[in-house]
Amino acid sequence: MDVRILVLYDNAGAQITAMAQAVGEGVGSVEGVEAILKDLTSATPDDLLDAHGIVLGSPNWNGMTGRLKLWLDDVSGMGQEGLLEGKIGGAFTAGWGRSSGTEFTLLTLLHWMLSGGMIIVGLPWTDRMAVSGSYYGATVHGSITRDDLEQARALGSRMARVARYLKDGGMESIV
Amino acid sequence: MDVRILVLYDNAGAQITAMAQAVGEGVGSVEGVEAILKDLTSATPDDLLDAHGIVLGSPNWNGMTGRLKLWLDDVSGMGQEGLLEGKIGGAFTAGWGRSSGTEFTLLTLLHWMLSGGMIIVGLPWTDRMAVSGSYYGATVHGSITRDDLEQARALGSRMARVARYLKDGGMESIV
Amino acid sequence: MDVRILVLYDNAGAQITAMAQAVGEGVGSVEGVEAILKDLTSATPDDLLDAHGIVLGSPNWNGMTGRLKLWLDDVSGMGQEGLLEGKIGGAFTAGWGRSSGTEFTLLTLLHWMLSGGMIIVGLPWTDRMAVSGSYYGATVHGSITRDDLEQARALGSRMARVARYLKDGGMESIV
Amino acid sequence: MDVRILVLYDNAGAQITAMAQAVGEGVGSVEGVEAILKDLTSATPDDLLDAHGIVLGSPNWNGMTGRLKLWLDDVSGMGQEGLLEGKIGGAFTAGWGRSSGTEFTLLTLLHWMLSGGMIIVGLPWTDRMAVSGSYYGATVHGSITRDDLEQARALGSRMARVARYLKDGGMESIV
Repeated sequence: MDVRILVLYDNAGAQITAMAQAVGEGVGSVEGVEAILKDLTSATPDDLLDAHGIVLGSPNWNGMTGRLKLWLDDVSGMGQEGLLEGKIGGAFTAGWGRSSGTEFTLLTLLHWMLSGGMIIVGLPWTDRMAVSGSYYGATVHGSITRDDLEQARALGSRMARVARYLKDGGMESIV
Repeated sequence: MDVRILVLYDNAGAQITAMAQAVGEGVGSVEGVEAILKDLTSATPDDLLDAHGIVLGSPNWNGMTGRLKLWLDDVSGMGQEGLLEGKIGGAFTAGWGRSSGTEFTLLTLLHWMLSGGMIIVGLPWTDRMAVSGSYYGATVHGSITRDDLEQARALGSRMARVARYLKDGGMESIV
Repeated sequence: MDVRILVLYDNAGAQITAMAQAVGEGVGSVEGVEAILKDLTSATPDDLLDAHGIVLGSPNWNGMTGRLKLWLDDVSGMGQEGLLEGKIGGAFTAGWGRSSGTEFTLLTLLHWMLSGGMIIVGLPWTDRMAVSGSYYGATVHGSITRDDLEQARALGSRMARVARYLKDGGMESIV
Repeated sequence: MDVRILVLYDNAGAQITAMAQAVGEGVGSVEGVEAILKDLTSATPDDLLDAHGIVLGSPNWNGMTGRLKLWLDDVSGMGQEGLLEGKIGGAFTAGWGRSSGTEFTLLTLLHWMLSGGMIIVGLPWTDRMAVSGSYYGATVHGSITRDDLEQARALGSRMARVARYLKDGGMESIV
């Protein structure tokens, strides 16, 4: 596989892990693109460097979790050195309230990626948005549903296709 | 009534009007506080000046509607002159998608009020948030529900009580 | 002193400490209102409970620091239990870039407070905003300036006055 | 030219027009990519359809201007029909205050584009950010500076290169 998408998540809750797997399935559905799933305890800075795209997942704890932010704080030098430039970025979250910070938690993840010069991919309007998902990424509210998993797969697939096009188009970095 | 809360909304959709009325009921449930409901076609700049608090409502059109923003652009000089200083602010919205911009639309309304020095009141976490509402204000997703109306009333009531305390405490303005 | 404003900050950087002190000066300039300054290493959950208002400060690390978020994650149960309801909230930050996440970092702080039902106070438009400050709170960009310190004092003073009015008006909590 | 980037702006202020031209220069600096500049009075829905990328520019009026939002409201059906899917999106703004809504105005522009499934390109950290620019796009604060124009060119160039790679990689749309 010559294109790799890292799915990096804080597995505080079974829903996040299930969503990470669904994003990975979406990524893997695109020919020549591989998903690498890592939670915070197993991920390394090299995982970020090796990936053409990064999907960050966090439970909705009024923004991303402190644990995930600590991990990202430790590697934020990478962004300042331009090492994340031109990588594709996406996000997912899970929480209990319907609009209680869902979008904002996704935005905390996307913001970190924009600061490193990453290119952001979300989820466009579809009829499924009546029951799941956000323009900013894939979501769960309460118990995970089939629609939530479909949105996660759609996000993974979009990420993989964009990364594939950029790679085939000759991109190394866009610093 | 010596404390007045203006509920100003773009009535593009029956849901917004129903929510405005529910916010008004919440306001009116607090002794000595009166709700004034105005849509864009009937509101005047004096309505803003006369109010101790303002609740803005807009359908979720990827942020507030252009029509409402045009109306607010026309009176934004008020904020720069300090005429909105210390007024209470709150927000509500209605849309179809579950997380497709709901929070963001509320934020576009709160942002405008913060720029004028207004004091922001939202809705705290409750069990009802599993099915309605946002920290940033009251919400509808799809068909309006009893929970949505309850959240709107809760917002109105919170606004009214905060405005009441500030008035009774002697506040004129906090410029 | 019967009204207390807690200034809680992550002192990663001398600028944040200087800003915390200036916020405290602004608080202290209002009769009968006391500022309590605590950094992350000395603050306790009781400090939050005892305060009528809370000002959170963080360096601009693409949102609040992971360390501060970890601290807040540990006490987020307070918000869900309604123990922060009706307290006044404000925010400040310091960073190097002019618009590189300043507002967003303030928003990560305000968002946490809104989730607990706190009442948000920012900084309105003034001529000084040409060189410092944000509607979302007090700011530093690069080396700290006299204007930055004045904005921090203005924020502290606004917080103290609003807390004073609410207390004098009879507010206990607005749950 | 087989790749086209539309620069669509509300020319309320000379700074926005100067920034639009600088974005256009950045776009034009990439081989085979053409910039099309249109203000609100001359742009048509077809301009959106014909472009591989869209850069939106608005003065910082506490979010985008109502005029620009009205224009976008009129064409928002395009996003719901998937006609903007996979196009590249970027943003710029100009205002007087240093952090008084600059990021937020950029976010109102990016949000609209994310709702249509567009792929977002911002500006990564550079030393120049000490004096200009935002992760969310190019900015002006007060009088326009050489750094501001350089950031606008950098945004245009990044947009053009990403659009070029995607086109060369075979992308039609990523619906």
